[in-house]
Amino acid sequence: MPELRKDPVVGRWVIISTERSRRPTNFQDVQHERTTGFCPFDPGNEDKTPPEVFAFRKDGTAPNTPGWQVRVVPNKFPALQIEGTLDRRGEGLYDKMNGVGAHEVVIETPDHDQDFADLPIEHMVLVLKAYRERMNDLHRDRRFRYVLIFKNHGAGAGATLEHSHTQLIATPIIPKILQEELEGARRYYELKERCVFCDMIQQDTADNNGRRVVTQNDRFLVIEPFAPRFPFETWILPRRHDSSYQIVSDEEEYVDLASILKDTLQRLNQALDRPPYNFVIHTAPVSDGDLESFHWHLEIMPKLTRVAGFEIGSGFYINPTPPEDAAQYLREITVEI
Amino acid sequence: MPELRKDPVVGRWVIISTERSRRPTNFQDVQHERTTGFCPFDPGNEDKTPPEVFAFRKDGTAPNTPGWQVRVVPNKFPALQIEGTLDRRGEGLYDKMNGVGAHEVVIETPDHDQDFADLPIEHMVLVLKAYRERMNDLHRDRRFRYVLIFKNHGAGAGATLEHSHTQLIATPIIPKILQEELEGARRYYELKERCVFCDMIQQDTADNNGRRVVTQNDRFLVIEPFAPRFPFETWILPRRHDSSYQIVSDEEEYVDLASILKDTLQRLNQALDRPPYNFVIHTAPVSDGDLESFHWHLEIMPKLTRVAGFEIGSGFYINPTPPEDAAQYLREITVEI
Repeated sequence: MPELRKDPVVGRWVIISTERSRRPTNFQDVQHERTTGFCPFDPGNEDKTPPEVFAFRKDGTAPNTPGWQVRVVPNKFPALQIEGTLDRRGEGLYDKMNGVGAHEVVIETPDHDQDFADLPIEHMVLVLKAYRERMNDLHRDRRFRYVLIFKNHGAGAGATLEHSHTQLIATPIIPKILQEELEGARRYYELKERCVFCDMIQQDTADNNGRRVVTQNDRFLVIEPFAPRFPFETWILPRRHDSSYQIVSDEEEYVDLASILKDTLQRLNQALDRPPYNFVIHTAPVSDGDLESFHWHLEIMPKLTRVAGFEIGSGFYINPTPPEDAAQYLREITVEI
Repeated sequence: MPELRKDPVVGRWVIISTERSRRPTNFQDVQHERTTGFCPFDPGNEDKTPPEVFAFRKDGTAPNTPGWQVRVVPNKFPALQIEGTLDRRGEGLYDKMNGVGAHEVVIETPDHDQDFADLPIEHMVLVLKAYRERMNDLHRDRRFRYVLIFKNHGAGAGATLEHSHTQLIATPIIPKILQEELEGARRYYELKERCVFCDMIQQDTADNNGRRVVTQNDRFLVIEPFAPRFPFETWILPRRHDSSYQIVSDEEEYVDLASILKDTLQRLNQALDRPPYNFVIHTAPVSDGDLESFHWHLEIMPKLTRVAGFEIGSGFYINPTPPEDAAQYLREITVEI
């Protein structure tokens, strides 16, 4: 059983995945993306993954057989384990609990060679709907406090299988960066009675002809944030104040989100020669309901620079590209979506 | 002039290094360590770096000529700029200031091919003394609130020159992770009237035959911390409560620190086949004086796994090696130092 352990100084929880414990000599083999040969995500190999928990598939096709457009399965090598109780306990000054959680994979397309950014809008809508379905289902499990949706695209960004997929981890604690965002946004709200993200949206669209704006449509805005950790870090925010991703339910909203996500990834692909990237959805926690102070958004982080001792040791990031410059490069690109 | 910018939600400062602004096509060239050809850190090339600010050198040799054992120079491509005032200012809801600070390089040996872990103890003492000299000197500059000492060893850990060196960045704000450690340790002290690091030292040496202890000598203890972010993350702590690195001033203390640092790096080198690594010194801020609640230490982080979307997007780390296992591997290694 993996363990969740808490650093007694800063309060950061980590997952110690005892089941996958690696010997010192055993770190090389996970550094490379497997690009040839057998793929467990390809149609016809459905029995090589754990049984699906959700799928969009052609009428009349059976679960765990071909015929799906988007398929969600438990991760075969999960970081957290779905069965069990949390069993929170101390060990002297240290705190820990069982590593209980869900770890799932959203297989975004049956086509092994299809790049996520090149999916047709209507197919990307299915992926976005699958996220919501799984979030809603996992929210019913009272052990979980957060459901994190994230993508590793390309070996440089940590992908170990090249077949396009997103991951989902449901955790019994709120991850540190989310906790900080929630608290920071709450403090701002207490001070101003306004959502800090709504204020950012207002200022960034009005300011100096929108220097940090990349693109926008009726429902969403894409910006390079004012103080990004990484060059070309790019955020997609709903214009309307909503604290949770799951509020997206209207077909037109899904189409607008899929369109702007595709548009943004295409711009990044053109500007940066198809870089490896991560994206993550930041949304309000399961139990918080509608929050006036928080505003869900999607953060895209191309992997262009190496995080080194200064960043790892201090949490202080050096970003060589001003977001105003990055936004201008991205704005000037013409995309056909 | 680089800028310091603050994220309006989480309060994290970042350095936007406008001087080194990179175009989208310009990210590949910084990914590789230069391993052949001209080295600006070699003796005889002293005029290829900015003039030295400190050196240990043979009697009678002139500054910026050969004859040095350890040489400290300003970074030729600094992340922060030494001249200027902070000029703190707002831009609507955003906060920023000028990127004023010091960025120096400690060239640890004149021998281009000497690995840091293989330096003789008495030479490593000179490196450790150089850290203290520069910290003390930079602390006299009232614009700076923190001096961070860190090492990138190997291309995989972000080193861009292979000649052994440490970096030092003096910043006008306290970096985020340090701020969190200082606050966490202060809260613990308020609750317990004890230093949390002293309690860790006591528990880890007493507990279950020291399962997380790697090695120790009269003045220092080496542990794998209870909740490490990375496999084989290793901390060196002084047994005696001291909040600042600069308290190390006694020759015997320097020798003990150099010995245990060398011992620890040799163990990591043997266990992990000379991995790339980062280390960083966490010490109390310039202006805080002696703190009952904080305890300086050195954190070593071998670069074995890739940090991917989950970690970057949530601040929640998955560590595949329990620290008790890592400590056992490292304990079992025989080193000659």
